[in-house]
Parts: sequence; C-alpha cells; structure tokens
Amino acid sequence: MDIKEKSLHFHEQWAGKLNLVSKCKVNTKEDLSIAYTPGVAAPCKAIAENPEDAYRYTIKGNTIAVISDGSAVLGLGNIGPYGALPVMEGKAVLFKEFGGVNAVPICLDTQDSEEIIRTVVAIAPAFGGINLEDISAPRCFFIEERLKELLDIPVFHDDQHGTAIVVLAGLINSLKVVGKNKEEVKLVVNGAGSAGIAITRLLYSYGFRNITVCDLHGILSSEYPNLNPVQKQLLEFTNLSNIQGTLEDAINCADIFIGVSAPNILSSKMVSLMNKDAIVFALANPDPEIHPEEAKKSGAKVVATGRSDFPNQVNNVLAFPGIFKGALKGRARQINEDMKLAAAKAIAGLISDKELDENYILPEAFDPRLCDTVSDAVIKHI
Amino acid sequence: MDIKEKSLHFHEQWAGKLNLVSKCKVNTKEDLSIAYTPGVAAPCKAIAENPEDAYRYTIKGNTIAVISDGSAVLGLGNIGPYGALPVMEGKAVLFKEFGGVNAVPICLDTQDSEEIIRTVVAIAPAFGGINLEDISAPRCFFIEERLKELLDIPVFHDDQHGTAIVVLAGLINSLKVVGKNKEEVKLVVNGAGSAGIAITRLLYSYGFRNITVCDLHGILSSEYPNLNPVQKQLLEFTNLSNIQGTLEDAINCADIFIGVSAPNILSSKMVSLMNKDAIVFALANPDPEIHPEEAKKSGAKVVATGRSDFPNQVNNVLAFPGIFKGALKGRARQINEDMKLAAAKAIAGLISDKELDENYILPEAFDPRLCDTVSDAVIKHI
Repeated sequence: MDIKEKSLHFHEQWAGKLNLVSKCKVNTKEDLSIAYTPGVAAPCKAIAENPEDAYRYTIKGNTIAVISDGSAVLGLGNIGPYGALPVMEGKAVLFKEFGGVNAVPICLDTQDSEEIIRTVVAIAPAFGGINLEDISAPRCFFIEERLKELLDIPVFHDDQHGTAIVVLAGLINSLKVVGKNKEEVKLVVNGAGSAGIAITRLLYSYGFRNITVCDLHGILSSEYPNLNPVQKQLLEFTNLSNIQGTLEDAINCADIFIGVSAPNILSSKMVSLMNKDAIVFALANPDPEIHPEEAKKSGAKVVATGRSDFPNQVNNVLAFPGIFKGALKGRARQINEDMKLAAAKAIAGLISDKELDENYILPEAFDPRLCDTVSDAVIKHI
Repeated sequence: MDIKEKSLHFHEQWAGKLNLVSKCKVNTKEDLSIAYTPGVAAPCKAIAENPEDAYRYTIKGNTIAVISDGSAVLGLGNIGPYGALPVMEGKAVLFKEFGGVNAVPICLDTQDSEEIIRTVVAIAPAFGGINLEDISAPRCFFIEERLKELLDIPVFHDDQHGTAIVVLAGLINSLKVVGKNKEEVKLVVNGAGSAGIAITRLLYSYGFRNITVCDLHGILSSEYPNLNPVQKQLLEFTNLSNIQGTLEDAINCADIFIGVSAPNILSSKMVSLMNKDAIVFALANPDPEIHPEEAKKSGAKVVATGRSDFPNQVNNVLAFPGIFKGALKGRARQINEDMKLAAAKAIAGLISDKELDENYILPEAFDPRLCDTVSDAVIKHI
C-alpha cells in the first residue's frame, strides 16, 4: 500500500480521528445531580456573575477551536469545508498529542470574510483560543486582524505564524552553522502569500534587514502589478532600493533563500549565484523549490525542506502545540510578536552548539522537551 | 457539603468535564504522515469529490453540536452563553456516557435569531447533528424550523422534543395503570413555552384528542392576550370549544395534568376537582407544581416529577442519547414525528406489565437496555 491507500484505510478504520470523552464517570443519581441538574446551577450562576470563572469551572481554559473555510487546504487549494475536515481533525490530534490541548475542528460553510468573522465571534465563548487554518490569502490577514480586535482570546493563523516561527528557528541555527550575522545577510523570500508575508514580517521583527520578497512576476516593488494591501505594506521594510526584476535578479549574491512557493522554481544556476555558504529553505510541499541534493551540489551549505524524508524539516508542529499550551496556561489575551520570537528562539535553543551542524538545525517533532520549552518561553512574554 | 458546594468543587477539580482525545497514537514520522500530511490529502480529495464520504473518513458520523445562546438555562433564565457552558458540557457528558455520541458544547455570543441560524448553518459541516438547548420560547420554534429547512442533518431542540417524548412515554404507561384510553381522557397542559407546546403537539400526534393548554392568564383560547404564532397554532387542535377561564376551570373533570410551569401552581383543591384516578405530571424544576404526596392525598393515582428523589422522574436523558444514536447510525436527515413517537413507545415498553405500577411508569436513566432500545426503535422510522 502506498501512503495514499494507507491513509484512506486508516481514516476509514477510525471513522474520524477524535473522541470526545467525559473526564468524570456518571454512574449514579448523585453523579448526575452534581455533573448536571440540579448541581450544575452553581457553576452556571458563578460564571454568569463573573465570566472569568469560565476558566475555573469549564473546559474553556484548555480548549481551542481549529477553524477553516477550506479555501487553501495544504497543497490541495480550495476544496471547501468538507474536504478540509480530515486536516482539521489531524491538526486537533497534533494539538492534543503534542501539546495536551483540546482542539475542536470547525469547518465553515462560508468563504465570505465578514461571515467568517461573525461566526467565529459568535462561537467564541466556549473556547480559550482560536487557531485559524488553511484560509486563503489575502483574506486570512484581514480575518485574523479583525478577530484579534474583536475577541479577548488568542487568535493565531498557523499557516502564517507557525510557519514563520519555525523558519526563524531554523535560520537562527543556520546562521550559526555558516557563521553569518542577521544584520548583514541578504535574504530572499519567494512567495508572497500567507506564509511568505508572515515569515518576512517575523524575520524583520527579529532583526534581518536586507530582505527582498518575490512572487509570480518577480521582485515585489512599487511597480509590481496588483499588489494587495498586505504586500504593499511589505515594501515599507523590504526591497528599500525598490529594485525591479526576476527571482534570478533578486537571488544574485543573496545569503538566504526562503521558498514558500511552488516546485522546482529554484534552479541550480540560481543557487550558484548566491553567496558562499548559502542557506536554502525550499519549503514547497510535497515537492520543494529545488531538490536538496541539487541545492547542495550547486553550493548551498544548509538546506531545509517541508518534508520528513530529508534532513532539517520545517514543520509547524514544532511550534503550535507549545504556543497554545503556553498562551492558555498564561491566560494570554493574544499571541504577540514577542511570544513568537521567544518561541522561535526556544525551538532553536534545543540544539546545543555541539550537536548543531548543517544537517541538524531543527529539533525533531518528537523531541520530548519541545512543547514545554516552547510553552515556558511563550509564557514569559505574555 | 450541600449539592451546590459539591458541584462547584467538582467543576473546579475537573476544570471542565470533557476531554478531546485522539483515537490513534502519533509516535513516529510514519504515523504523522498518515494521520496528517502528506497522507491526509487522500481522504480530503475523496470528500471534496463526494461530501458524503465525510461520514466515512471523519468524525462527522458520530459527532453532534450541543448549541445554546444561554437565553433560557435550566431554571436560571437568561444567563448568557458563558453561564450556560457548564450545562452544555454536562449535556455533552450525558450524550457520551449514555449514548456513545461525541457532543461538542457550543455557546453562542448572540441572541439574535437570524444570527443564530446563520452561525449554526456556517459551522454545520463538521457535525452529523445539531442539538439545540436552552433557547427561549418562542424564538426556539422559529430557529429550529429554519435550521431544519436549511440543513441536511438532524436538528433537535431537546427542551421541546426530549421532554415531550419522555412525557408521552410516562403517559402511555400511566394510562395502563389507571385503565383509561388516550382517545377518551381529558388532558390539561399548564405552561405554553417550549416544553408545553412540544408536549401538546406530540400528544396530539399520538392520539390524545381532548387537550386544553393553560398559561399565566389561564386557558389558551382565541381571547387569550398576546398569543404568539406558535401558541395560536395550538388552538387548531386544542380547546376546540374555545372555552375561556382559569387553570381551575380547565382542570375540572380532567384526567391528566401536565405541568411545565412554576412551583406550587397546582392546589390540592384543583387535584380534587379532577376525575377519579387522576394522573399528575408536576414537572417544574426544582420545585414541582404540587408536592407529590399532597397530590396523592388529594386523589391523584399516578404522580410524576422532574426530580430524582421522587418516584417517576421525567428526565430527558431517557430519550436524547438514544434518539441521536439512532439518527446518526441510520444517517437520518431529520428527526421526524414517527421517530419521536417510536422513541416514546420504546421507553414505555421497557417496563413490563408485571413490573408496571403507579410508582414505576418510567425506566431508570441507568437502565442498560435504554439507549439501544430507543436507538433501534428510532432507526426503524427514519
């Protein structure tokens, strides 16, 4: 069986990957009268008087919603809310298995941004956080921003920030491997969708200064056709010389390439144009922008992909379980920039200088220290 | 500790009564690649092509949402969505413990009917059914009706139909105890809110013909002040002589009283005005319309309440777990009148003629046969 058949079989066998279970047994009339009526009136009244008590008496404090409209699911595109369900369930499984966080998959039967915002606000009371997932750009930016304004619980679009955090963690360690400084390197991000934009923003927050972003038509500049408002905003701190040209033009003498774009977009020739000891993150899934071996042959020193069958997998699961575990534990009202930076540093810090090498810049997803290290770091910056 | 303190302590100890757990372990990279990317793309694609496959590959087929706006919570009234959360969690616990059904508590931060309808429709894809809970009348009727039109999964307002089903089950057996026929008895329902209206409708469906409904101002007739549309509709098949008067007028020579109203509304004198071998269901919670002993002293033969500390508890938990278990198993598109009638008969049928007596008209909530008996009966009438 190939992986496709295995996965179909697996999903059919389980008929869904999640179970909702009761923490307490209900075996007697007294059990019933405490967990349900008439006893349950007591916590109800307490919470009605003081809504913060929901964290004390209900699942709110350790439960989030994983919400998608199915408009940009993995590499599958706009497959709608039903098709998105196995991914959201899978995400919920990872939240629980890696972070101990209860996560409820919610797939929305609407792709209207205002309707999505209204719906998420309406269902928020039972949840301690909202993880947005697989919502297409640029809608995802507007939706997340509005929800952050409207809700008093953390809202986190994982395709943006989860990816950005793990990329930054990988870069922190990659720079150590090649002995370069964040302030001096020239960095090219290829792909100006949700991940690319969030990566660019977080790298700038961290202190990278020479960043050029490319998309389908080459370098993002004031002359780039049909920039959306979020892409336009990037020009305030990227490509400050307003250079126009192709990806090949951008990558000339670059130190770092971050691809969140499409398969085979990065040629050997382009890599050979980069500076010595180049860092190449070819994150397109399942087929990277360049095959890692080819990148290495063309001069790249550190190569990362999104795949588990090559070294240095950039995988959001390194970040999101710990991020939400920490945010919930610390009762954060939002996940701010400092929390993201702290998470990236914490992930990078799990690899000691002694262990660090070009094929080991990121910890394994199954590293048992991972989630609590991230969670503890995040809590300090709430 | 009294029950209030016990319940507060219990809720704080568990910090919420539910857990979301993964059915499958994720211990290796291969586990990850099957439960999540890249393997998960296979069920996603299958479902995107054929949404019915969601029942095959996801939790949809055994997962419902328990939805409230907190507008009419137990006897507590309009305490809002946060205050309602412990009840919705408790309901979810009962769905799982008694019916094996996954139930997700969703508390809505809106009490606007149109907004509620839009929200429930928007979040429906991940769920195989919707249990509405503690939504005030008459809004609950409109909301349920609209959702039934808009969704292709069962929608069930338990305060209406769950109560009605268990009341009917109790009446079927009570009539056996007193040796009367449904076609001949005179029946008074006191309380024209969600439960009273649903009870009246279901009893009529079952074959009761002489029904009078009362509310705060006495008998519902064409002259009753400010009838809402749903109450007005009741007059098409109740109080056909259009009698006006008080509850005391209505109850004169009645065989059956069903109270879903307020404490101590039924006096000894009123019970004494009823026919011989009267049946009194005094279901106001926690304090019934009349104390069971007083009702008995005044001539009632069978007395039921909503409480677990008296005989004959009318408790929705006898119905809703089996109803949804059956509806989900049979992939019902809605819960129709025949399914409700079948559930009531199945519940009543669990007590053999030999066991049946005036203090044992309904099975115990913990009767191990209950859920599957109801579920099997329901499936036959989808």
